[in-house]
Amino acid sequence: MSAEKIDGKALANKLKESNTALATSLKEAGIEPKLAILSAEGDIAGNSYARSLKRAGKRIGLTVEPTGYPDAIAQDDFDRILKETSRGVHGVLVMRPLPEQLDPAMVDSLIDPLKDVDGVHPQNAGLLALGRPSFIPATARSILHLLKSTGVELKGKRAVIVGRSPTVGKPLLQLLLAEHLPVTVCHSRTADLPAVCREADVLAVAIGRARMVTPEFVKPGAIVLDAGFNWDDELGHELGDVDPAVAEVAGWLSPVPGGVGPVTTQLLLENALVAAQNSRP
Amino acid sequence: MSAEKIDGKALANKLKESNTALATSLKEAGIEPKLAILSAEGDIAGNSYARSLKRAGKRIGLTVEPTGYPDAIAQDDFDRILKETSRGVHGVLVMRPLPEQLDPAMVDSLIDPLKDVDGVHPQNAGLLALGRPSFIPATARSILHLLKSTGVELKGKRAVIVGRSPTVGKPLLQLLLAEHLPVTVCHSRTADLPAVCREADVLAVAIGRARMVTPEFVKPGAIVLDAGFNWDDELGHELGDVDPAVAEVAGWLSPVPGGVGPVTTQLLLENALVAAQNSRP
Repeated sequence: MSAEKIDGKALANKLKESNTALATSLKEAGIEPKLAILSAEGDIAGNSYARSLKRAGKRIGLTVEPTGYPDAIAQDDFDRILKETSRGVHGVLVMRPLPEQLDPAMVDSLIDPLKDVDGVHPQNAGLLALGRPSFIPATARSILHLLKSTGVELKGKRAVIVGRSPTVGKPLLQLLLAEHLPVTVCHSRTADLPAVCREADVLAVAIGRARMVTPEFVKPGAIVLDAGFNWDDELGHELGDVDPAVAEVAGWLSPVPGGVGPVTTQLLLENALVAAQNSRP
Repeated sequence: MSAEKIDGKALANKLKESNTALATSLKEAGIEPKLAILSAEGDIAGNSYARSLKRAGKRIGLTVEPTGYPDAIAQDDFDRILKETSRGVHGVLVMRPLPEQLDPAMVDSLIDPLKDVDGVHPQNAGLLALGRPSFIPATARSILHLLKSTGVELKGKRAVIVGRSPTVGKPLLQLLLAEHLPVTVCHSRTADLPAVCREADVLAVAIGRARMVTPEFVKPGAIVLDAGFNWDDELGHELGDVDPAVAEVAGWLSPVPGGVGPVTTQLLLENALVAAQNSRP
């Protein structure tokens, strides 16, 4: 058996079209949508992603403005830059991880909830948990989007999420519960992780360990969604959290690269466009 | 085999002592802790619970002020009463379910997050989901408290929660994940619910159906926690969601009445005292 590939690039291309149409309609209404991105000057991965978002934004008609800040910045100065950067834009994204002297909780809370395109503000995390989502973290949305693209009937299926991060595992759990799936969240401290994962008809992996999920974790025919993004210097590209050998067991598999990533990018841009749309008086 | 009883009344008595000590220390610091409760005049169960909270508050040194509002109240008038009621008290509790003309989401958001003793404001739900809890819904806290009281080592165990409500199932999920358990959330739409429940070493039930969980749902030796509260007119007391016959299979069982309920009451009062404590300049 060889898994069907869930083609993130093709899905991203479709989203690119709808994003372009939305950006055009905003401009016709006199709104120039803008997204600001803040990253530490020494954050190579963060700056690289900010640049790629800038290019992707340009293609659909969204202005993306990356701003660097000194790695050794004090919390007060960061707060001031965040406030200034947020003025005159519709969305704000702060790249993670933050320099260690900054308090992530304080940063999350300082983002205007109406401009919080990655859904990190407690208010937005809460609205999602209460079943009234506003901005949802783009990676979690992307995984659901890929899952639905398979067209597989979800009724009667079980989902397992590996990883409990506030930006992927936990919001995805809310999304899958809202789809009426029973959901198990497991993590690095789970006893017999492979056995728990083998219960999954839908297995979503976001644990941040390259190729950790091997075929023994996978129920034959399962839909496997890989949100891993582990940069490999030697190979010069990222590796997923799922071993490609899983394709021999799974029914569906999203590859890395070319799976969750490109769809996440478009959904993040979409969130920024929606923020611009909501800003209309 | 006969399950050990998890004695909620005994645990509540211990909490009553610590609550009394906390209330005394607040008074010594010049703070008279006060909790306001809003319920519809026609809500018999809500008014009865409000009165019992008033009595329980009196015993520990917390002033509880129940206020009724007309069942047919308009949203605007409710909002005004909520605002007025919140003045001069440290905690506010709005009894559910609300009359159907009121918007529960709007009511949740109108409660001052600093006085939100049952953790229903999106900000508080979000802080819990992000791992930085402020006020946590008292029923979820109560279930964790009962679980820990068993003294059973949780490492390597699996938890299953039946029910995905925003006030019990979902916050309990966050609490159990924070304890490093893998957690499955299932619900009325889950295929083969008994089989999923039998995976649980820790089974928490909050589904709102009297005695739905029968012995076939339970793994021998499991810890079973029953948050059911289904009033039975004929019997004149509430019934749990768990059939008492489960005691023949489970290792531990919290009874209804006398399990989750009395501990929830004390933890709700504790939240109000903490709100008063936090109000110190």
